Amino acid sequence: MSLDEFVLIERIARRTHARDDIALGIGDDAALLRPAADQQLAVTADTLNAGVHFPAESAPADIGWKALAVNLSDLAAMGAAPAWCTLSLSLPQAEAAWLDPFADGLFALADASGIAVVGGDTTRGPLSISITAMGQVPAGQALRRDGARVGDDIWISGHPGEAAGALRLWQQGRLDVRHAAADAAHEHLRQRLQRPAPRLELGLALRGLAHAAADVSDGLLADLGHIAARSGVAVVVQADTMPLSPALRAAFGFDAALDCALRGGDDYELCFTAAPERREALGALSSSLALPLTRVGVIAEGRGVRCEGDAGDGRASGYRHFAE
Amino acid sequence: MSLDEFVLIERIARRTHARDDIALGIGDDAALLRPAADQQLAVTADTLNAGVHFPAESAPADIGWKALAVNLSDLAAMGAAPAWCTLSLSLPQAEAAWLDPFADGLFALADASGIAVVGGDTTRGPLSISITAMGQVPAGQALRRDGARVGDDIWISGHPGEAAGALRLWQQGRLDVRHAAADAAHEHLRQRLQRPAPRLELGLALRGLAHAAADVSDGLLADLGHIAARSGVAVVVQADTMPLSPALRAAFGFDAALDCALRGGDDYELCFTAAPERREALGALSSSLALPLTRVGVIAEGRGVRCEGDAGDGRASGYRHFAE
Repeated sequence: MSLDEFVLIERIARRTHARDDIALGIGDDAALLRPAADQQLAVTADTLNAGVHFPAESAPADIGWKALAVNLSDLAAMGAAPAWCTLSLSLPQAEAAWLDPFADGLFALADASGIAVVGGDTTRGPLSISITAMGQVPAGQALRRDGARVGDDIWISGHPGEAAGALRLWQQGRLDVRHAAADAAHEHLRQRLQRPAPRLELGLALRGLAHAAADVSDGLLADLGHIAARSGVAVVVQADTMPLSPALRAAFGFDAALDCALRGGDDYELCFTAAPERREALGALSSSLALPLTRVGVIAEGRGVRCEGDAGDGRASGYRHFAE
Repeated sequence: MSLDEFVLIERIARRTHARDDIALGIGDDAALLRPAADQQLAVTADTLNAGVHFPAESAPADIGWKALAVNLSDLAAMGAAPAWCTLSLSLPQAEAAWLDPFADGLFALADASGIAVVGGDTTRGPLSISITAMGQVPAGQALRRDGARVGDDIWISGHPGEAAGALRLWQQGRLDVRHAAADAAHEHLRQRLQRPAPRLELGLALRGLAHAAADVSDGLLADLGHIAARSGVAVVVQADTMPLSPALRAAFGFDAALDCALRGGDDYELCFTAAPERREALGALSSSLALPLTRVGVIAEGRGVRCEGDAGDGRASGYRHFAE
């Protein structure tokens, strides 16, 4: 069934949940929202293009989930609580058979995280999803990239590199991103690539605990490089402390797994820095969230990123869309 | 010169002007903004795709201007003052020779309207520009589509149909959108298509004057249809009162000019309704803004849109991206 632009918009509008701070939702020239008093507004925008940011054959539900997840991950990295988003969707053709599962995936995550879709646009064009997400954080409590201090521990959530591992399997023709893999390790990695979990609870809990934070979307060393540059400090990573997941090691062996963890993009874990006095509190937080938090280095005087004990060439690079 | 993703972002970031209400601009996971107390946040998102929303050969500066203009027009239609926006830019290749004039066009309008670019994303892909614009309006003063009342006059700003006329000339091979036309009427229409002027001052001035408003992006009858539907009233348009521009009549003659004015999209004028008691105030406003404001109909009991004195077939249609 081919859908008209207005039908498309209505089909999205009627699925979004209500929030008390929405004075006017989809259906006018703009939405009208009521920001909370004494909160700052955190705003981020990320676009996913078919064939560039996800395999073109990905299931529509996975695309919908991931397009929102990458934006929520940025809010998590600021310690912001999700509030509203806009969705700009370019589609080669408007088919209910594609749109409905896409919306299933998107709203599964939107509803779980409390974010409402308040506006957007549907246009004809190559498949592309642009989301601008807005969240709120009390003034002075946001987790910024420029707050790292010399002597801070560097922490990473979860098991970085798993999404990059899945992408590598797919590129090698060893993984079908559309269907559950028979191999349990491969299936675990596939889920991490197609259904990344933005670390929203962690981000909120890190208010007042972390000095600096970023999400790992460009690769751990690259994103720590952003913290180093913005904070005017050096990042020293101990490669042998990296929490390599059993699934990643099973699929690739140690060296390639480490390379994925240090340089692979698309992870959406949080890396952050905190004073050594916070170790106990962060251990307790890890338990309460059932999410591994691992110390992988320290902040030192100087500039740039140094990775000790890395078998690779030590370059602090991540994924760049326009890089050669 | 081919540009890296991070260089691209910096090239945008350093051109945006400062605002006191930006706590943290481009360069972190999200921007941090300070919404004004007692104001509502107006949020809108519009995407322009090459070959769908503008001729692919358009000058980069015109594309940059228009991508922002269509979003500012939505803020104008709400009576909101522009504040911040995000810019998601998909480019086949990152060339300074394209990006710099694109930014020239975008920032010419951004700086004139006071809106700051606070975030965004650059990705590789077919040329597409998604902007989410945020503005502010005192609670209760926004111009909504659902406020039209029986007995209201219907007003239109400027000369609707000019952009549609230019598009028609281009489709007929009579207009080069990249270069100034020798024919003065054609050049006037070309400017209206490529450099639409969002009616921001008018939108702000209509707070407290207009009962309902919308921008004319889908075509006047279609957009008045949205007001009728949302307000639960009928719209009656007198075609013989339509302010047809001399340039449009010169290029097409009366009948085709009227068709452009009633059904052409891409205009970005404001249509609005107001009580008859407001005629004098609106006449004075028209003079002070040096912008024609013309009464073109009335709000009546009932539903839908009726166009009296129209030589066409009376269908209330506008441009729909997915329509047959």
